[in-house]
Amino acid sequence: MKATVHRKAHFNAAHRLFRKEWTDAYNAEVFGKCSNPNYHGHNYELIVSVSGEINQQTGFVMDLKILKDIIYEEIEIPFDHKNLNLEVEEFKTLNPTAENISHVIWKKIKKRLDNNLKLEITLYETPRNFVTYTED
Amino acid sequence: MKATVHRKAHFNAAHRLFRKEWTDAYNAEVFGKCSNPNYHGHNYELIVSVSGEINQQTGFVMDLKILKDIIYEEIEIPFDHKNLNLEVEEFKTLNPTAENISHVIWKKIKKRLDNNLKLEITLYETPRNFVTYTED
Amino acid sequence: MKATVHRKAHFNAAHRLFRKEWTDAYNAEVFGKCSNPNYHGHNYELIVSVSGEINQQTGFVMDLKILKDIIYEEIEIPFDHKNLNLEVEEFKTLNPTAENISHVIWKKIKKRLDNNLKLEITLYETPRNFVTYTED
Amino acid sequence: MKATVHRKAHFNAAHRLFRKEWTDAYNAEVFGKCSNPNYHGHNYELIVSVSGEINQQTGFVMDLKILKDIIYEEIEIPFDHKNLNLEVEEFKTLNPTAENISHVIWKKIKKRLDNNLKLEITLYETPRNFVTYTED
Amino acid sequence: MKATVHRKAHFNAAHRLFRKEWTDAYNAEVFGKCSNPNYHGHNYELIVSVSGEINQQTGFVMDLKILKDIIYEEIEIPFDHKNLNLEVEEFKTLNPTAENISHVIWKKIKKRLDNNLKLEITLYETPRNFVTYTED
Amino acid sequence: MKATVHRKAHFNAAHRLFRKEWTDAYNAEVFGKCSNPNYHGHNYELIVSVSGEINQQTGFVMDLKILKDIIYEEIEIPFDHKNLNLEVEEFKTLNPTAENISHVIWKKIKKRLDNNLKLEITLYETPRNFVTYTED
Repeated sequence: MKATVHRKAHFNAAHRLFRKEWTDAYNAEVFGKCSNPNYHGHNYELIVSVSGEINQQTGFVMDLKILKDIIYEEIEIPFDHKNLNLEVEEFKTLNPTAENISHVIWKKIKKRLDNNLKLEITLYETPRNFVTYTED
Repeated sequence: MKATVHRKAHFNAAHRLFRKEWTDAYNAEVFGKCSNPNYHGHNYELIVSVSGEINQQTGFVMDLKILKDIIYEEIEIPFDHKNLNLEVEEFKTLNPTAENISHVIWKKIKKRLDNNLKLEITLYETPRNFVTYTED
Repeated sequence: MKATVHRKAHFNAAHRLFRKEWTDAYNAEVFGKCSNPNYHGHNYELIVSVSGEINQQTGFVMDLKILKDIIYEEIEIPFDHKNLNLEVEEFKTLNPTAENISHVIWKKIKKRLDNNLKLEITLYETPRNFVTYTED
Repeated sequence: MKATVHRKAHFNAAHRLFRKEWTDAYNAEVFGKCSNPNYHGHNYELIVSVSGEINQQTGFVMDLKILKDIIYEEIEIPFDHKNLNLEVEEFKTLNPTAENISHVIWKKIKKRLDNNLKLEITLYETPRNFVTYTED
Repeated sequence: MKATVHRKAHFNAAHRLFRKEWTDAYNAEVFGKCSNPNYHGHNYELIVSVSGEINQQTGFVMDLKILKDIIYEEIEIPFDHKNLNLEVEEFKTLNPTAENISHVIWKKIKKRLDNNLKLEITLYETPRNFVTYTED
Repeated sequence: MKATVHRKAHFNAAHRLFRKEWTDAYNAEVFGKCSNPNYHGHNYELIVSVSGEINQQTGFVMDLKILKDIIYEEIEIPFDHKNLNLEVEEFKTLNPTAENISHVIWKKIKKRLDNNLKLEITLYETPRNFVTYTED
């Protein structure tokens, strides 16, 4: 008997879309105003979804208090009120698109979960633009 | 040509996380403040999702007025403004976690639907904690 | 490495549920107040979801600015502030249920996307009634 | 000891902005696509706010079950799934802008309330456009 | 130069509408299913609004981190995951309607604020029923 | 016969809370992580509220299409995808707290409105922190 539990969280951060390998002009051509060298920012809304068997003792797929703590340690502490490009190790060399941020979040949380649990990440960059990253 | 139709509903209820087989101390250890013996409560938001062929005559997967009535009879009448542990038969012996409530809702609605329709239940316990239960 | 990007949009339109092949009495019996001959209307909220590989150069599944423009041209221009039954070609002969509108939107956007991208449409007719249309 | 109680409701309707006294061309010039002769429509979201003394016996400004019934009788029954211009008496001669609809709703509910209660109406035509009508 | 700052918070609690001075039958007659002796519950959403001069040094009406801590200490700790009737001192003798809960919250936070600040409380019992309490 | 019309808009921007007159250490002490020298950012949600007489010809307090254009020119163009501290003239010498941003927005829109209209600004820095600025 399987189910998926979801936990919402959020963080506020600055970023710019930017590849070091490209000229400023080409970054601006591809990413437009999202590549502003002075940065812009978002209230990122995050949904972490964990699928697995419902434990017959607890009635939980996993304890959401534990998931909340994992999100806090892995995502909120390192990302909240930060400049993603300058202050988060992963994005010093990786363009912080919503797709790439979702993948990084997926990897950071995945390594904290039991192997039998499946993980999906949904990340809202704005209320109108969002991304889902899941495992195959 | 298949689609999924979704209908939102809600109910307000009291509950506590609790297993009779466990001591009060162990219930408190596992479930924390969610096991308060005096109960606490939630505005549960429910999404009922039904997948199937689009009927070429009506353009419906199923008539949402009928689904609305099924949800009202099976879920809102027995659950709304109730104490789930004390007043809903299924939870007298089953711990009312969001996972277990979703499964109970799934079973109650499933038996009212045509066999060729697939059912998924999403239940928000709070705006930040929610669960999805679907069939394999 | 795959992900899904989602873009929200909306349009306001009038419609009625109605099949020409049926008598007015039978339309009223099947569709109730949704078949009012004088029309009623909705603020349709639309989520367009596109799945595919994350491009290693851009970090995008697809550029959401381009998707936004496709939605504007294919859906917002022809549907917004229109009477769907009278003014949108597809619904002159097709009953504009949320299921059928989703399918029409799917076909109009699908033909504008690269072949390797998968498309899913979610359409809210009201905050409580919505539909998902996806490819097999 | 005063407070304000609020009750949300909604209705779906078709309308067009239009003054009979004006030519079609002038209506189109002033109201743009909102004046489409074939109508368009909205999911109107309504907040009814009633201010007054908290009754020391009940702890209520007024019983929200009663307010819910008044809204149902005065607004939802006559407005929901209707064409406001053609089927609602007040708008046969009054342009159904959000301002005017709010004023009509205010008058219809006001006459059902005790004289010592103050009434404010908030009407969302879309999630981005809304109006507040209150008494002086 | 004045402004109002708002901070949202929430708590989940059980309650019943009930006056000890009344018979059970009369409580049921006045409060209906909200008077269920086994309790029901809500996700209460709270908006605390503080008005005053914008400090020319900080640019703040008041530091929202401090307001967040006051709400946590005065409201979330004593109310969250509690049975309001049984476990919150104020409601042992006061009927916990949304109006009365708002007034209690107003008094608890007011005594923690500078005298020159004006306080307003908005409390959502459900997404459709809410109350505003303000000072004269 | 008066009413208030409201228009929602949004912009995404980077900022930091910071006063040049203060040392970095004192900025950090007062503003905490909001003073991060590398900036952070927000999806600012804006509600512009305009109060006045309902025009008996149009049924409008003011045409929301005109208000939408004013917001676009005065706020969205200069603020969206910008670093408020570095790229918006007003905040080169003014700390961009939500209170101060609201006041700047109020002044920029106010000068574009008819004198008989009253203006109120509501600015959401996050879904949980927001500010209202109004005239006396």
